[in-house]
Amino acid sequence: MSLQTQPYKGTRDFYPQDKQLQKYMFGVLRKVAESFGYLEYDAPILESLEIYQAKTGEEIVNQQLYTFQDKGGRQVAIRPEMTPSVSRMVAAKRQELAYPLRWYSLPNLWRYERPQAGRLREHWQLNVDLFGVESLAADHEIIQIADAILQAFGAHSNNYVIRINSRQLVDLYLKDYMKLSDQQVYQTTKLIDRWHKIEKAEFHQHASEILNDDKLYRELIELMESKDLGTLPTEIRNHQSVKDLNELMELLASSGVKSAVFDFSVIRGMDYYNGIVFEVFDSKPENIRSMFGGGRYDGLVGLFGVEPIATVGFGMGDVTLLRFLEAHKLLPKLEPETDVVVILIGEVYQKAQIVVKELRGMAVNVAVDTSTRKLDSQIKNAVKSGIRYCLFIGDEELESQTFKLRDLQKGEEKSLSLEQIASSLAVRHIQS
Amino acid sequence: MSLQTQPYKGTRDFYPQDKQLQKYMFGVLRKVAESFGYLEYDAPILESLEIYQAKTGEEIVNQQLYTFQDKGGRQVAIRPEMTPSVSRMVAAKRQELAYPLRWYSLPNLWRYERPQAGRLREHWQLNVDLFGVESLAADHEIIQIADAILQAFGAHSNNYVIRINSRQLVDLYLKDYMKLSDQQVYQTTKLIDRWHKIEKAEFHQHASEILNDDKLYRELIELMESKDLGTLPTEIRNHQSVKDLNELMELLASSGVKSAVFDFSVIRGMDYYNGIVFEVFDSKPENIRSMFGGGRYDGLVGLFGVEPIATVGFGMGDVTLLRFLEAHKLLPKLEPETDVVVILIGEVYQKAQIVVKELRGMAVNVAVDTSTRKLDSQIKNAVKSGIRYCLFIGDEELESQTFKLRDLQKGEEKSLSLEQIASSLAVRHIQS
Repeated sequence: MSLQTQPYKGTRDFYPQDKQLQKYMFGVLRKVAESFGYLEYDAPILESLEIYQAKTGEEIVNQQLYTFQDKGGRQVAIRPEMTPSVSRMVAAKRQELAYPLRWYSLPNLWRYERPQAGRLREHWQLNVDLFGVESLAADHEIIQIADAILQAFGAHSNNYVIRINSRQLVDLYLKDYMKLSDQQVYQTTKLIDRWHKIEKAEFHQHASEILNDDKLYRELIELMESKDLGTLPTEIRNHQSVKDLNELMELLASSGVKSAVFDFSVIRGMDYYNGIVFEVFDSKPENIRSMFGGGRYDGLVGLFGVEPIATVGFGMGDVTLLRFLEAHKLLPKLEPETDVVVILIGEVYQKAQIVVKELRGMAVNVAVDTSTRKLDSQIKNAVKSGIRYCLFIGDEELESQTFKLRDLQKGEEKSLSLEQIASSLAVRHIQS
Repeated sequence: MSLQTQPYKGTRDFYPQDKQLQKYMFGVLRKVAESFGYLEYDAPILESLEIYQAKTGEEIVNQQLYTFQDKGGRQVAIRPEMTPSVSRMVAAKRQELAYPLRWYSLPNLWRYERPQAGRLREHWQLNVDLFGVESLAADHEIIQIADAILQAFGAHSNNYVIRINSRQLVDLYLKDYMKLSDQQVYQTTKLIDRWHKIEKAEFHQHASEILNDDKLYRELIELMESKDLGTLPTEIRNHQSVKDLNELMELLASSGVKSAVFDFSVIRGMDYYNGIVFEVFDSKPENIRSMFGGGRYDGLVGLFGVEPIATVGFGMGDVTLLRFLEAHKLLPKLEPETDVVVILIGEVYQKAQIVVKELRGMAVNVAVDTSTRKLDSQIKNAVKSGIRYCLFIGDEELESQTFKLRDLQKGEEKSLSLEQIASSLAVRHIQS
């Protein structure tokens, strides 16, 4: 009986073309993060189970987590997210690290998704975090990076919307202004969080049930639909959280972020956020779900027995990003990484070694066809592999040190010296 | 009770400095592999358990493998090596792929190591494989790449030795020349494989016990110590496997590989190799164990129900490579990725945005100190973070568009325009 060739359910194999695309995407992400002074870190894919139990919602720990007992009796888990790992790492060197601390990573993450959901079990996620800044400058910078990433991929500001809210404002509005009971606050917050996921009619019905007050209910809907801080009741407009939101919108405008709007519907789940939160949406109506988001979540480092640190961050999944780039036709055509395939004429494999080595020394990526098939079939094979050029080397070429370089796309052929070949082919690597 | 900050046993956290070093190492590995026309691929870290059961030795499947049952009842394993995954991927597209197929990857691998062994449970491994070439050109190219990698890190040919043998020659020598029984062949092969791991006296004792013949025993020891194909008995010198080894040594010499020697002690375990095998040793006497190796292992793709493919490859672990580079003082001093930290003078955070954005647009990696601490303490912090330059921005500078750039290493300060700053700082990224 032979083995199956499919990858494990819910995962992807990365054939060279897929891997090249991933490397292109990660390259852009790294470049933007580093341009803001962020440094890359990484952690093991296995962590002790307790760091997720201490932090994450129940659903994930019980149902979605890949968890098992190791041979030493330890309960371990394959990381479903990076925040517990990075909080652990920062806590371990709490005193030695220099703040503001700017860190990013590109981990693969695992979640046990039910087959019918159609979601992936393994995906990658850019994580960007700024530790140690209590002022709005941190929230501003993090949102700026999210914007700069999409711009760096060539997106226009009208391809996406950055929806911004404040968890403090939500609390203020529901508790101090609406004067809801604790249970109502909890229910209403949960309902607001589902605004983009459920039908309007369903939302209206639940909201009127929970609030049981026509005026409050109409005001809430109006606020959520307005995308305007001016819609907030005058009673709370001078509160710090409102001032913060106003100042943040101004800062974002000053730094050229054009896609930011206030949106009272953004909550980011019932999770650990406690200040500014944001979510980035594709502006295509057929893809209205949140692409990614983040916010302020001071204090997770505190789970590890050290003093909490003010933190703002976001995570951006590779699958969502890829879908966005495809939808907006922002994926470039990637050139093959191999510049040229050498086709040997006659028994010259050994004699051709010096020439091939010299080309590689001049930054040319050279594959040698070692198949000893017929010339025609070697050329066909080069075309099949997508390589742009082939170079013919035989006794005559080795003697004259002049080689025929064929452009397989244009069908042109030129006789060139090694230096000429190198200077026309290697230039791509030096530029990139 | 607070959580532990250590990573999971036998694993490493990669703080930015560690990650930067890893990226440097991986960058060199990628560059060399790609210069030979190899393309990067990847596969999920979880695979079905059966692909390791079908291929790997019993010890690994039973004791060293991270394996568990998923919530759907599937037996899965975290990959301990990449060969089964890549064989699966090639088998899945057996017909569509163009041969010779040159692939490499840089996966993280997991093995459950006993604590006392002091070895790591998670490590990374460069995997390089050439599929579809039956001739010696494949063995030659793979060994050339192993050599080119060490050279690319700045190693000299006398820092390491590439020991080369042939599994066919071992079989020929033990069966046809020594005329050993099947059990003796098995025992002797196993013993030879331990040559570099046990004391000479222990080897001699076992060899004389197994062979029970003084002449054969003395000849075997002589052959293993000689590192010379000329030591082989005349009766088998015309055999194809000996001719192949001679030709391979010649090819390697032609392509400038100076560290290759014939070594009858190289077996590469009892595993699946069936032709040329090689192992690379650090030449420092205090580090005599094999660093990495590989060889020909045609047919693993066949486990997946397709026609076997001639394959040669090797794997090189990151920990071993790092130890080698450290021992020979080959690690470069890496420059910080952040070029400059901006220190704001007065309340100019918002006004400074345009300048900072312009610098980033000119390929300068800029961190802004958003801490609002005193100037002195901001400068100290920049020094602590290892960043080379700091740039002062205040109202005066914004007006004159001339900024003070301080070199924190030399203590020098210059007044420059943005373009001057960019052209002196960004040049590093463009070159690299």
